[in-house]
Amino acid sequence: MFNLVKSELTRRNLLHQAGFGLITLGIVPAIFKPTPTLAQGAKEPPMPPEKKLGWAVVGLGKFATQQIIPSFAECKRSKLVALVSGDRAKAERYAGQYGVNPKNIYNYQNYDTIRDNPEVDVIYIILPNALHAEYSIRGAQALKHIMCEKPMAVTVAECQGMIEAAKKSDRKLMIAYRAQYEPFNLAAIQLAQSGKLGKLKSIVSDHGRNLDPKEPSDRWRAQKKLAGGGSLYDIGIYSLQATRYITGEEPVEISAMMYSTPNDPRFREVEENVNFTLRFPSGVLANCTSSYGYSDTKRIQVFGSDATLELDPATDYYKHRLTVKSKNGNEERNIPQQNQFALEMDHLSESIMNNKQPKTPGEEGLQDVKLMQLIYEAARTGRTIKV
Amino acid sequence: MFNLVKSELTRRNLLHQAGFGLITLGIVPAIFKPTPTLAQGAKEPPMPPEKKLGWAVVGLGKFATQQIIPSFAECKRSKLVALVSGDRAKAERYAGQYGVNPKNIYNYQNYDTIRDNPEVDVIYIILPNALHAEYSIRGAQALKHIMCEKPMAVTVAECQGMIEAAKKSDRKLMIAYRAQYEPFNLAAIQLAQSGKLGKLKSIVSDHGRNLDPKEPSDRWRAQKKLAGGGSLYDIGIYSLQATRYITGEEPVEISAMMYSTPNDPRFREVEENVNFTLRFPSGVLANCTSSYGYSDTKRIQVFGSDATLELDPATDYYKHRLTVKSKNGNEERNIPQQNQFALEMDHLSESIMNNKQPKTPGEEGLQDVKLMQLIYEAARTGRTIKV
Amino acid sequence: MFNLVKSELTRRNLLHQAGFGLITLGIVPAIFKPTPTLAQGAKEPPMPPEKKLGWAVVGLGKFATQQIIPSFAECKRSKLVALVSGDRAKAERYAGQYGVNPKNIYNYQNYDTIRDNPEVDVIYIILPNALHAEYSIRGAQALKHIMCEKPMAVTVAECQGMIEAAKKSDRKLMIAYRAQYEPFNLAAIQLAQSGKLGKLKSIVSDHGRNLDPKEPSDRWRAQKKLAGGGSLYDIGIYSLQATRYITGEEPVEISAMMYSTPNDPRFREVEENVNFTLRFPSGVLANCTSSYGYSDTKRIQVFGSDATLELDPATDYYKHRLTVKSKNGNEERNIPQQNQFALEMDHLSESIMNNKQPKTPGEEGLQDVKLMQLIYEAARTGRTIKV
Amino acid sequence: MFNLVKSELTRRNLLHQAGFGLITLGIVPAIFKPTPTLAQGAKEPPMPPEKKLGWAVVGLGKFATQQIIPSFAECKRSKLVALVSGDRAKAERYAGQYGVNPKNIYNYQNYDTIRDNPEVDVIYIILPNALHAEYSIRGAQALKHIMCEKPMAVTVAECQGMIEAAKKSDRKLMIAYRAQYEPFNLAAIQLAQSGKLGKLKSIVSDHGRNLDPKEPSDRWRAQKKLAGGGSLYDIGIYSLQATRYITGEEPVEISAMMYSTPNDPRFREVEENVNFTLRFPSGVLANCTSSYGYSDTKRIQVFGSDATLELDPATDYYKHRLTVKSKNGNEERNIPQQNQFALEMDHLSESIMNNKQPKTPGEEGLQDVKLMQLIYEAARTGRTIKV
Repeated sequence: MFNLVKSELTRRNLLHQAGFGLITLGIVPAIFKPTPTLAQGAKEPPMPPEKKLGWAVVGLGKFATQQIIPSFAECKRSKLVALVSGDRAKAERYAGQYGVNPKNIYNYQNYDTIRDNPEVDVIYIILPNALHAEYSIRGAQALKHIMCEKPMAVTVAECQGMIEAAKKSDRKLMIAYRAQYEPFNLAAIQLAQSGKLGKLKSIVSDHGRNLDPKEPSDRWRAQKKLAGGGSLYDIGIYSLQATRYITGEEPVEISAMMYSTPNDPRFREVEENVNFTLRFPSGVLANCTSSYGYSDTKRIQVFGSDATLELDPATDYYKHRLTVKSKNGNEERNIPQQNQFALEMDHLSESIMNNKQPKTPGEEGLQDVKLMQLIYEAARTGRTIKV
Repeated sequence: MFNLVKSELTRRNLLHQAGFGLITLGIVPAIFKPTPTLAQGAKEPPMPPEKKLGWAVVGLGKFATQQIIPSFAECKRSKLVALVSGDRAKAERYAGQYGVNPKNIYNYQNYDTIRDNPEVDVIYIILPNALHAEYSIRGAQALKHIMCEKPMAVTVAECQGMIEAAKKSDRKLMIAYRAQYEPFNLAAIQLAQSGKLGKLKSIVSDHGRNLDPKEPSDRWRAQKKLAGGGSLYDIGIYSLQATRYITGEEPVEISAMMYSTPNDPRFREVEENVNFTLRFPSGVLANCTSSYGYSDTKRIQVFGSDATLELDPATDYYKHRLTVKSKNGNEERNIPQQNQFALEMDHLSESIMNNKQPKTPGEEGLQDVKLMQLIYEAARTGRTIKV
Repeated sequence: MFNLVKSELTRRNLLHQAGFGLITLGIVPAIFKPTPTLAQGAKEPPMPPEKKLGWAVVGLGKFATQQIIPSFAECKRSKLVALVSGDRAKAERYAGQYGVNPKNIYNYQNYDTIRDNPEVDVIYIILPNALHAEYSIRGAQALKHIMCEKPMAVTVAECQGMIEAAKKSDRKLMIAYRAQYEPFNLAAIQLAQSGKLGKLKSIVSDHGRNLDPKEPSDRWRAQKKLAGGGSLYDIGIYSLQATRYITGEEPVEISAMMYSTPNDPRFREVEENVNFTLRFPSGVLANCTSSYGYSDTKRIQVFGSDATLELDPATDYYKHRLTVKSKNGNEERNIPQQNQFALEMDHLSESIMNNKQPKTPGEEGLQDVKLMQLIYEAARTGRTIKV
Repeated sequence: MFNLVKSELTRRNLLHQAGFGLITLGIVPAIFKPTPTLAQGAKEPPMPPEKKLGWAVVGLGKFATQQIIPSFAECKRSKLVALVSGDRAKAERYAGQYGVNPKNIYNYQNYDTIRDNPEVDVIYIILPNALHAEYSIRGAQALKHIMCEKPMAVTVAECQGMIEAAKKSDRKLMIAYRAQYEPFNLAAIQLAQSGKLGKLKSIVSDHGRNLDPKEPSDRWRAQKKLAGGGSLYDIGIYSLQATRYITGEEPVEISAMMYSTPNDPRFREVEENVNFTLRFPSGVLANCTSSYGYSDTKRIQVFGSDATLELDPATDYYKHRLTVKSKNGNEERNIPQQNQFALEMDHLSESIMNNKQPKTPGEEGLQDVKLMQLIYEAARTGRTIKV
């Protein structure tokens, strides 16, 4: 039925010559025979679907539906199996698109019955900050492992309640600090701590964006009772995190200033700008900005005695650029982009599978909430605060 | 069971104030109520799994297993449902990882029985170049739509046979020219043809890499009978394509030079370097290089009377950078990265669903094979060839 | 005597055809006849040597001999006519190289007799900070105009003494804030104040370098009595300046932290790192770093509501890069490099010629010394200081 | 007369402590005592004016007046002492501005009497291409050394005449190939030939600009009889040069295509675009473009087996950028900018002082003229030409 220039025989002979093995009638060999090392190469294959842990996503806002839910497709150990939403129609639409069984759709009332669903191993809380504690605690009480978005919660007490609840249920609690799973940030940490920049002297990190009142997911962020804080809680926390994971240390002193544009309706309840300075035990001083008023910025810069590292954008969803600047020139490193959301979720799944503490547990989230409270205090009092 | 600082009542009141609707017992409202425009926002949602077209991948080499198969997860209209491979164990491993039903695994012998499998709508041929024609034609004869990797085939006659076979079966035939579906290249085409660069004068495109004999997927590329040609067929074709899709024209004259390092075992059968120049009807002259001997390069540059466009990397799997250079400075454009493989496969699925001609049909592949033959002739004869 | 292919006649005819005018025997016309607008084009021609003002350079350290003295060659209104140094042989060597009449070499003893030298109009003080006041005042008393390196002096009282002395002698006093005459910084100021970045929200400026004890010009900088201060006085002053010239405002609040590596012999007397934050009346908060411990950094970043401006390097002697980052992409502006030292010196010469106040008079230097004293106080007390 | 906070005694004591030597009355020590190595540091000091060679500039067009004449100020071994122009008033204006004795102004008639002027050692010919030969030969006959702008001349015969004339007068003849004296290009040559890029495989060089009929210095370039050729003679020659100095080899084969926009009045006599390909003995193939129709481009790219070097801009008057791209990333090298015109002129002065052959003698210019003639022939005949 196929009759081109080359005869069947010629073709088989030619594959043979090419090292693909002898082709005899009835036995067509593998066209490609990669060496074993290649088959297990850089790109780890996904686990078979039935071995992946089942995740429920709580809250179907923009971040959940545009970043997290599509990212399951790139997970190796995690799969989406359930949705929790107050909007049934919306949940059904996403369930249809992503192959979630409609019986696994929950609302905020029957949320606790998720306990009875053995398909669900992990619950990912993507709600306004003020609801993180309640839904994490209820999730842990339903004997599920918990991933919770940052900031962990609004108050230190809430954070402590969450940690306790997870402990009591013997479940993992992880805070979704995606940057700590993202390859460019990992490379920056490695470079900074390896001594390749010389002795670290200073860190400068700037994170800001324009709060957009036309964006539904930004509307609750303008409300103190739902958001807990302003730009610092939402995006300044990336600057704070950066100083901690780059140094591997905890700050010992904090000073800060705040400013919110008067009469800007966005900043009636939450702050616009926070500039803060941190002192670390090794002597590193870090200057950070946090803003709900300037155009998109996500940048980390590390000044060492021998070289400077610039990560800009540092904490974007997709795009990153890492440059090492020294007296010889500027070296932009080639680092393969990866889906940080998938890496982050798989980290928790792997921690659960191997029963180990995740890298960013509840205690990590609690520490940031503590420090952010002190930053507000430093700004309010005009005094350098000892931690 | 949940008892934190804020009482249940306070919390509900607070959601009410935030505009999330009144929360009464038994009625938990949607936490997020995006406006309709947002729900249908920039990111198109995937079709439900049952509506997606089913694809079979033929050949499980590095490109198929590391790029194409994982990319189905990001497709909106396409899903992986079958595998064709001479290595059953390997096929079963990938089937398990990607949730392909083991009954949908075929080998090169029983490949034609895919005709009887209604789950398979499209066949994607990812085999050595010399096998493209056979497997495309057999696929079309099995009444499936065909996506075929570039180069379409080794000879003009093979290309014509493929086009005919698809026509006879009334099936779509598309060549996998991924760059024509990739956002940065589309932006470059739009910029070049919009007049924003002024009148186009010249195009320079360079594509090369080091052929790696230790890499199984490169071994067959060193064999003339399987690859059909050398660097030109594999990677120089990107330079050729670029000149055609940037101008939107067909070349009228071709000159070329070739060079292969003597005694380099990689270049016993296929050529290493080809430099070629094309004249287009509008007067644009294009200088292209193609190499199996220089370090990774994938670059397109378009020179207009007012500005220059640089796309570098232009045709990488992941990373692209588009800069417009003029007397005012260099402007690097922000263009969201997207998975070009998913876009490309969805384009064919959409073309099938809407019964329209895909943007890069068999005729597009045939034209490149014709032109590459003329490039070889120009190099061999040392004469400028009229097309 | 000249006999090539083309005859004399042909050549003349050809020049005629080219529009260079009729060439007749004995009348060779101008080869180039630029239009008047071109002749007075972008590049201002220098004044004839005899009209330029005569400058004396006081102190022949590295900066004076490698930057300032060679830059006179690019001045339009300024020429080097005298040298003041404690090292006669060195002064004679430079006098020979730059065509300075040996009779115009002074030492620190007979410096005041420069009053009797009519060739000298301006004195440029390039001495350790602690000597700025004395030599500026003696220079003004010798009835010469004064350019003084930054920082203007060590104390506020010294600055006031300098301003008074110049006033009393009716001479100009300018502080050598080269960045305020450098085209990239001027473009940054223009962009920031034009509204093109939207409303200004934040400024981040970082200036640092490794103090090098093997470098003679760095040895006195490690001594409090000669330098007056550490990195802040030397290089942090650029960060401070940047916040002031970018906003066009004066800070109203200051907080700061300092750190010097214990047991580093370079920092026995002067500070290594100072991080400071400034609040401006418009609400802009500025984060600055100053360091004698990290690798070369000279950077200004301005965050507006619509776009971010990055100047990096910002205050290098030669190289600058200005990028505007917005949601559309990163735009690196083409700005012609110019010799900022020549521009700066010519600015004072022009101010003298036209009897107008220079842009950076003594009062500008005084303000920085005041503010730097407050930065030290804020760091010492751990309190935010109201200016 | 000077009375500030610190007493005279304290100040002197403080300089003593700082290691500046004991200050006693009547003996003011050197403020700076650089170590000998520093005094002879990277920046070579200029020769005293009386030891510099005296140069005459022939032709006062835009390039001469805006680039060359101002660059003498940065020369270490060369000084401007004479002007040759057909426009006396213009020559007098420049003479005044640059301190040239008016008696050293010549016109094209009395040009030969420059022989009698001992102040003039070197003549720099900056005239339309068709006049290079005559004025170089007359200059050599006047027993002066000759610097001649590129292209050396219009024909091979003219070049040979120039070489002969210089030889006969025992004077140096150098062609002003500034790129061969410019630090970024020198670094590129060094990198390419050092093996750091691996084995060289390909060179791509693009030079173009928009010929501007409103620009007087471009008007003669549109006239074949004055310019000798079009974009190739003016700017494509940089691409040609680049391939030769990067490889250190001479091409053995040439193919080319040309295109001039019909009805564009600029290209009635001279060509707009030339694309040419060169084969070098080592196997390197080079693709070059030359254009009078596209926006400013001055770029050299070198493809090696291990890395790619990009110099862009490569041959600008001021600004250069050198990047090495490899699988590890993109490394932009820090290379100090220097005035290439000053370096070039000083090279000839130094060659004269030390009686050695300059790096780019007449023979270098002759070779380019030969090759450009062959490029035109290849384009005309549509054949690959053996050199």
